[in-house]
Amino acid sequence: MINVAILGFGVVGSGAAEVLADNRHVIEKNLGKAVAVKRILDLRDFPNSPFGSLVTHDFNDILNDPEISIVAEMMGGSHPAYDFTKACLQAGKSVVTSNKEVVANFGAELLELAAKNGVRYLFEASVGGGIPIIRPMVNDLASNEIISVNGILNGTTNYILTKMLDEGASYADVLKDAQDKGYAERNPAADVEGLDAARKIVILAALSFGKLLDPGKIHCEGITKITAEDASVAKALGCSVKLIGHTELVDGRVLAMVSPRLIPCSNPLAGVSDVFNGILVDANMLGECMFYGKGAGKLPTASAVVADIIDIVAHMGQDRVRAPKFEVAGDADYADFSAYKCRTMLAFEDVAENYDKLEKLFGVTAKFSHGRLVIVTDEMTEAEVDQKIAESGLAVLSRIRFL
Amino acid sequence: MINVAILGFGVVGSGAAEVLADNRHVIEKNLGKAVAVKRILDLRDFPNSPFGSLVTHDFNDILNDPEISIVAEMMGGSHPAYDFTKACLQAGKSVVTSNKEVVANFGAELLELAAKNGVRYLFEASVGGGIPIIRPMVNDLASNEIISVNGILNGTTNYILTKMLDEGASYADVLKDAQDKGYAERNPAADVEGLDAARKIVILAALSFGKLLDPGKIHCEGITKITAEDASVAKALGCSVKLIGHTELVDGRVLAMVSPRLIPCSNPLAGVSDVFNGILVDANMLGECMFYGKGAGKLPTASAVVADIIDIVAHMGQDRVRAPKFEVAGDADYADFSAYKCRTMLAFEDVAENYDKLEKLFGVTAKFSHGRLVIVTDEMTEAEVDQKIAESGLAVLSRIRFL
Repeated sequence: MINVAILGFGVVGSGAAEVLADNRHVIEKNLGKAVAVKRILDLRDFPNSPFGSLVTHDFNDILNDPEISIVAEMMGGSHPAYDFTKACLQAGKSVVTSNKEVVANFGAELLELAAKNGVRYLFEASVGGGIPIIRPMVNDLASNEIISVNGILNGTTNYILTKMLDEGASYADVLKDAQDKGYAERNPAADVEGLDAARKIVILAALSFGKLLDPGKIHCEGITKITAEDASVAKALGCSVKLIGHTELVDGRVLAMVSPRLIPCSNPLAGVSDVFNGILVDANMLGECMFYGKGAGKLPTASAVVADIIDIVAHMGQDRVRAPKFEVAGDADYADFSAYKCRTMLAFEDVAENYDKLEKLFGVTAKFSHGRLVIVTDEMTEAEVDQKIAESGLAVLSRIRFL
Repeated sequence: MINVAILGFGVVGSGAAEVLADNRHVIEKNLGKAVAVKRILDLRDFPNSPFGSLVTHDFNDILNDPEISIVAEMMGGSHPAYDFTKACLQAGKSVVTSNKEVVANFGAELLELAAKNGVRYLFEASVGGGIPIIRPMVNDLASNEIISVNGILNGTTNYILTKMLDEGASYADVLKDAQDKGYAERNPAADVEGLDAARKIVILAALSFGKLLDPGKIHCEGITKITAEDASVAKALGCSVKLIGHTELVDGRVLAMVSPRLIPCSNPLAGVSDVFNGILVDANMLGECMFYGKGAGKLPTASAVVADIIDIVAHMGQDRVRAPKFEVAGDADYADFSAYKCRTMLAFEDVAENYDKLEKLFGVTAKFSHGRLVIVTDEMTEAEVDQKIAESGLAVLSRIRFL
């Protein structure tokens, strides 16, 4: 019998307890041994939960219990989650987590600490919820050099953008609908401003290129400025609009960014709708490969947490296990965002004189579309686009990059 | 230095040699040790290949070389691939393969033989080419009970069906185009009759439900009877047509089947076009999850073969590794196909009297569509559909199940 402790009995934490209980026969069949929750740490009590008797308010009940060999941290937030994780690893307990904030901020240090203590730190559930992505990147793509990763990493914003495009509704109306349905939080900032996606793309960039960037230091644009007009221009261009976490190497340095993107319908990411997530990995031998599924939710996310627990149990007592390795990025590891190249959609006021100016500057014919003057640039750097906009002297109504 | 031998220097075999050589820096970084091809078995010589000097025509040069610890079998066909695999496993060498025929026919025995000899038998490349699917099913879905798997498992037929639907072209014309482009073989039977997909769904069924069915004993329908009329009816119904390998439990027994399916556009498999493969797994906690990518081709498939080699090297010398486990299905393990339930599209001759007969029998209103009388049944068993067709006394022009 393997004893597990759960830190944080919220949505995902209670889901993990349920998965371990409801699927115990599958898990036992796969492992040849049973796994059970012994303790649950939470500030609250849960008298009506079947797991209520396992709850403790004292972390030391878990830390000092030699029978608990695996701790599943699903508290959210950096502190005390990080501190508890560190203490568990130092005490020789393996830790699994769904907490992208801790992985994005402290993942390199915690992986190193786990290795030093002969235990493991796994975080499949931190990106893409239940979708297998971390382990496939570490194991299945080990024969490949990663070229780029593009991911729809946040279900809330994908739901909002899908509705805006399908129904032509405004951002504010759809956000309210998403909040009513429980798809968006009352304070939706971390989702709609892109921070949640930034943490996830930083984790995927670390797996791809070995350097863990600070999510606060990458280019991060949310979806709050996307308008119904943008949605209708996108449709006219044969594109979908998605909030994309993107990472690639630019001149040997790591670029990671989050921004809304115009995605041609032929791209498999264009079909990833509603609250689903999709992660498209381009690798030098494999080519493009997409992982698709439920990027959030109680049981899907918990199923990834439990997959990590099973992985640890399956390899217990072995001196060598496969683990992701990355280090904290130094200043020199960050690519210069202004050198990032792509095609960009720019919208201006629909006035005849603007047409000539834009054609001269960008060498492309502007289109009158949906009450706006819309141009699509050739592939050019951020710096070039900035400079041309400055030269034009015009106010940009909207600027959305193509993927 | 880990020495590998390659059996079969065809498309995938030469691809594996290329991946190992061209990506050796990534592989060495991931593993902390180098992996190189020492010997290649083929009947032919390759004087112009950079690997030409490694070629031998004598299998014993590989079998008896104690320095070779891993053998990659990419010969295709059951014999002598199966015999060589067995000999290698018995000699204490691990084997990786892209050969779905051997895995589908002898996988249970070979996995057992590998376990008995303390070595491994891995076959990531046998399903979905380069797409990670076998290892994710074994590792990442270990916390889930599998409900069903639906896969577009054959790129050739998917290319043909995509063209037929997009362009309204006939099967014969598109097949010829596919042959000219090298997407279909001169003798396309194994692809278009569904046998290739049958082997792959049998492997996925074994991973899902623990029983390896005989691909020759499952319901297997190819795409040769699909007409341009069917394609246009499908579009009128808001559906795509795909050759789908399907597996699920019916009354506790394993159902696996291959047939063309009508797929509503809202299903993520509907967007898997051209030569791409997509595998949609429905699991009891995770929900639906799709793996998408290049299901064939030299380097993508080879990259999966090399991922298996890396997996073996990473766990060398460890007494316990995670391996799929399944056994040969007995007669009682096969579900009764006639009890399989789904909605079905039936097309008949467009004659007024047929309309009344069909409405009486099926309780649905037949539609006149594209010169045919088309009905969509409620969800009912194969046996019920057969019986009603017999009662009608009408000739069925076309019968395609919905997914």
